[in-house]
Amino acid sequence: MSDPQDTRARPETRVRLVRAAEQLLRVQGYAGTGLKQLTAAAGAPWGSLYHFFPKGKSELAAAAAAHAGALYAEGWRRVFEQADDPAEAVWRIFEGEVRVLEGSDYRNGCPIASMTLDVASLDEALRRACDGAFGQWLAAMSQGFEAHGAAPDAAEALARFVLAAIEGAIVLARAAKSPAALKDTGAFVRAVIAREAEGWTDS
Amino acid sequence: MSDPQDTRARPETRVRLVRAAEQLLRVQGYAGTGLKQLTAAAGAPWGSLYHFFPKGKSELAAAAAAHAGALYAEGWRRVFEQADDPAEAVWRIFEGEVRVLEGSDYRNGCPIASMTLDVASLDEALRRACDGAFGQWLAAMSQGFEAHGAAPDAAEALARFVLAAIEGAIVLARAAKSPAALKDTGAFVRAVIAREAEGWTDS
Repeated sequence: MSDPQDTRARPETRVRLVRAAEQLLRVQGYAGTGLKQLTAAAGAPWGSLYHFFPKGKSELAAAAAAHAGALYAEGWRRVFEQADDPAEAVWRIFEGEVRVLEGSDYRNGCPIASMTLDVASLDEALRRACDGAFGQWLAAMSQGFEAHGAAPDAAEALARFVLAAIEGAIVLARAAKSPAALKDTGAFVRAVIAREAEGWTDS
Repeated sequence: MSDPQDTRARPETRVRLVRAAEQLLRVQGYAGTGLKQLTAAAGAPWGSLYHFFPKGKSELAAAAAAHAGALYAEGWRRVFEQADDPAEAVWRIFEGEVRVLEGSDYRNGCPIASMTLDVASLDEALRRACDGAFGQWLAAMSQGFEAHGAAPDAAEALARFVLAAIEGAIVLARAAKSPAALKDTGAFVRAVIAREAEGWTDS
């Protein structure tokens, strides 16, 4: 039996490690994030990281990608349900990113984009983890478009465009420490979706 | 006088270091790129890096950002000059990115985006270097739109949208090892520019 006093093995320690990893990936990417920084940010004992993630940083980062993938897919589904139409839903996602960046002095970027640019060509398992997270977000958005009558292929292509625009606007906003890229990009993307939706079956 | 046999001090060594830095930033970002790897990739003697860049990696990376900023701004200006119209010019930029990524097994991403996501919140001088490179690209594109009659403010906002879309599509393409995000995003962006251009004074 495991020792109940052994904080390394507590399930909430695993959760804290995953959340700390997601936060550090947002701020500084994968390569610059060290194991000591991860355990310190999680308030977790040193041995806990290898207890839950025997392969170390890459395994924890893959878990953080899966966590972020599910979390934001769920959040975006709710936005689509609550908004009057898909163009409004995507506009709210851009507005939300402006708030997150302005509220964090432009630190809290996208953990998956940051990780992708560090690892996509160096670590195939982590590249797939990033692609899996993007895939969940694309599916959430596609389904939002399909629910308003878009054909599946058209919904998928539009979702790729929208997600690309969001991710790139976050990069430019962080470089400039300015919301301008998100606001301008969001306005163009909203107009594209509104125009596309005119051709959907239920509009 | 400097020793002409001292390869550390040859001007072409500096150029090779800057180009090697730009290449490594594309593939793996800033944090994961080490000094030994930089000098090895440049075929440069160890001492040369600190000879030309006394502050080390961050100073070399800033020079690489300035190099990439000027190089791509110039390339994009040529594309705008040669294309029939701005929508076609931007479409060619997307096509060019597809070729670069497919031809490099998706290694050769954008050096500035990769560096931004690693350093924007950690190194203010490098953040400004990244913002400066993006600024050169935005200016090249804005001028391309203005040359076809766009008002300056509208041209700038459109350029921010277009650059965001390009940068984000590169991220998604590298994660998926697929050109789909670039192709879909490029098609939507081209249509947006064509529609915008209908309202410009010379069309």
